[in-house]
Amino acid sequence: MSSSTGLTFADTPSLLVDLDKMEANLKEMADVAADAGVALRPHVKTHKSPELARLQLEYGAAGITVAKIGEAEVMADAGITDIRIAYPIVGQAKLGRLGRLLRSADVSVSLDSAEVAEGLSNLGQRMSRRIPILLKVNTGLDRVGSLPGQESLRLAEQIGALPGIELVGLLTHEGHALRSRSREEAKERAVRAGEAIVQTAELLRGSGFNIREVSVGSTPTPRDNAHVSGVTEIRPGTYIFNDLNEMTIGVATEATVALTVLATVVSIPADDRAIIDAGSKTLSSDGLVPAPDSGFGYIRGHPDIRIDHLTEEHGILALDAARDRLKIGQQLEIIPNHVCPVVNLADVMYGMRQGRLEREIAVLARGKNR
Amino acid sequence: MSSSTGLTFADTPSLLVDLDKMEANLKEMADVAADAGVALRPHVKTHKSPELARLQLEYGAAGITVAKIGEAEVMADAGITDIRIAYPIVGQAKLGRLGRLLRSADVSVSLDSAEVAEGLSNLGQRMSRRIPILLKVNTGLDRVGSLPGQESLRLAEQIGALPGIELVGLLTHEGHALRSRSREEAKERAVRAGEAIVQTAELLRGSGFNIREVSVGSTPTPRDNAHVSGVTEIRPGTYIFNDLNEMTIGVATEATVALTVLATVVSIPADDRAIIDAGSKTLSSDGLVPAPDSGFGYIRGHPDIRIDHLTEEHGILALDAARDRLKIGQQLEIIPNHVCPVVNLADVMYGMRQGRLEREIAVLARGKNR
Repeated sequence: MSSSTGLTFADTPSLLVDLDKMEANLKEMADVAADAGVALRPHVKTHKSPELARLQLEYGAAGITVAKIGEAEVMADAGITDIRIAYPIVGQAKLGRLGRLLRSADVSVSLDSAEVAEGLSNLGQRMSRRIPILLKVNTGLDRVGSLPGQESLRLAEQIGALPGIELVGLLTHEGHALRSRSREEAKERAVRAGEAIVQTAELLRGSGFNIREVSVGSTPTPRDNAHVSGVTEIRPGTYIFNDLNEMTIGVATEATVALTVLATVVSIPADDRAIIDAGSKTLSSDGLVPAPDSGFGYIRGHPDIRIDHLTEEHGILALDAARDRLKIGQQLEIIPNHVCPVVNLADVMYGMRQGRLEREIAVLARGKNR
Repeated sequence: MSSSTGLTFADTPSLLVDLDKMEANLKEMADVAADAGVALRPHVKTHKSPELARLQLEYGAAGITVAKIGEAEVMADAGITDIRIAYPIVGQAKLGRLGRLLRSADVSVSLDSAEVAEGLSNLGQRMSRRIPILLKVNTGLDRVGSLPGQESLRLAEQIGALPGIELVGLLTHEGHALRSRSREEAKERAVRAGEAIVQTAELLRGSGFNIREVSVGSTPTPRDNAHVSGVTEIRPGTYIFNDLNEMTIGVATEATVALTVLATVVSIPADDRAIIDAGSKTLSSDGLVPAPDSGFGYIRGHPDIRIDHLTEEHGILALDAARDRLKIGQQLEIIPNHVCPVVNLADVMYGMRQGRLEREIAVLARGKNR
């Protein structure tokens, strides 16, 4: 079996997806959502594949989340119609694209400023409709978002009366859970984020806003905060594949990691060093969030071999007795630190079933950073 | 003017190439090579564009350098026929592709082991030809390569008699010059690398090897080591665009940087923080080599605003009085730390002439990590 380029999956570096494990991950998270009685709206930035987004919907997802309009365009082109863009839409170019997208899909967007709300309000008025919006609330990640409580209420009051938009909910991304030093701390942060956004929703409702959706997101947290009373939706992304970040924080194990990078040893120039053909163009330069400076991935079966540093096309392994332990041409299977940017660097993933290639999965929304 | 996707270059994040500056950079490096009497063989990994590779040839380059066969395939498809693959070719899949490539292009390859030489020897014998090879010499980067002197001679003796290949030269990549703490140290490393490989070439010649090519590479070094007597070729890459690495080490200035990332402020959630739409999916996660921990790029006109950290779609700026100094929708022009992975993350670059879009430049060899 070979791809359109004449390569086989045995050429490296390649992304291998264990389809059985991936499907188990999809089922498990669908069960988490069902048990908690909340909607599951996966962030598709992890896989960037309409095929896998459809599979998530088949496994019970209510819709999908994307970061950028370009990702939404790819998903809408593939017939996916319930899309949340968890990103502030800024500028006429993007508003024009959102307008076109709204003709074929149900799209809601998040924002944290009156400026962004006004742009959407103008678009909604021109289209004679009300674009559903969610306020982004900063529950501790300190990236975008208004603070829980009064600051979010003030923003709601500023934008709540604007025509052309409808404030339907609140949304947070508690990605700071991954920066925790322990599973317990991550759990505490998840619960606290859920409680903060639920309390803010209640505050806004008390001021007359019809807040119907209270959405939390990130992979390590749903098991901890989907049950927080008042949360209506979870938006995990990485769970479909898992990665070393999730293993380190304790919500995945080597057995539940569904995507690995196959690489080949191409040089053993010294006895304390070997070189693989997967560098930062394959593994990305992302460090491990819960444990920075711990290298660039985990080599299955070789826990003591450190992926010490990367250049674009070289992964530099640090180990003792390299010439005894490895040989040129040997293939190694790597669990990456952070799977999302790894997928973004690939054009295709190889879907494997019990060690055999079942199908290729195109990364159609790769590179859609606009 | 708009691209096939309906975007204009005013949508962000976008890569803008100042064509006048780029052409000046191409001319300057061609002059460096001509002055030193050496061949210029640019590494095209920086731009990944056949159009720009052809321009380099028009400006006097003798041929091109690539890292992976996939890059060579794209360049050969575009009619470029003199290609050096500065990477060990390992495995039947890649040897098969190299065989097809050799039918349409003059390809030489570098290696640092008998194992890789034997694979190439078998291919050359099957094709009834001798594949030109260069030994990769480690002059201090400590990545691939045999050590200068006796270790390289021993490898030459191991592989020199193999049929199907012909040892034509030595090659080094003195990328460790960029890790220097000063321009002076970088210069010293460059000269030392040049001298080490020239001495190794002389050692091999003394043992009967016909070493015709002595090739050095990396952008900060040619001005320092192209003149080292015995060097025959330079292989700079980044010089076409330059970046913050090259500025920091002192071989480029803001005025000679030809590629910038245009980004938009999408959120100012606090007075000490603003968010731009260029994250690690645009700028890559590469730190600054000569000064790690100094952030993720330089914002033109705002030297005191730090690009503090990145997530995939967010650049988090640290600054005082953010709400006074920036506004949502404002565009910022960023000089990236390391331009090569930034280009690899893009599908297109926008070629600008005096502030106006002249043409789009497709990144056709993007993502070719095999």
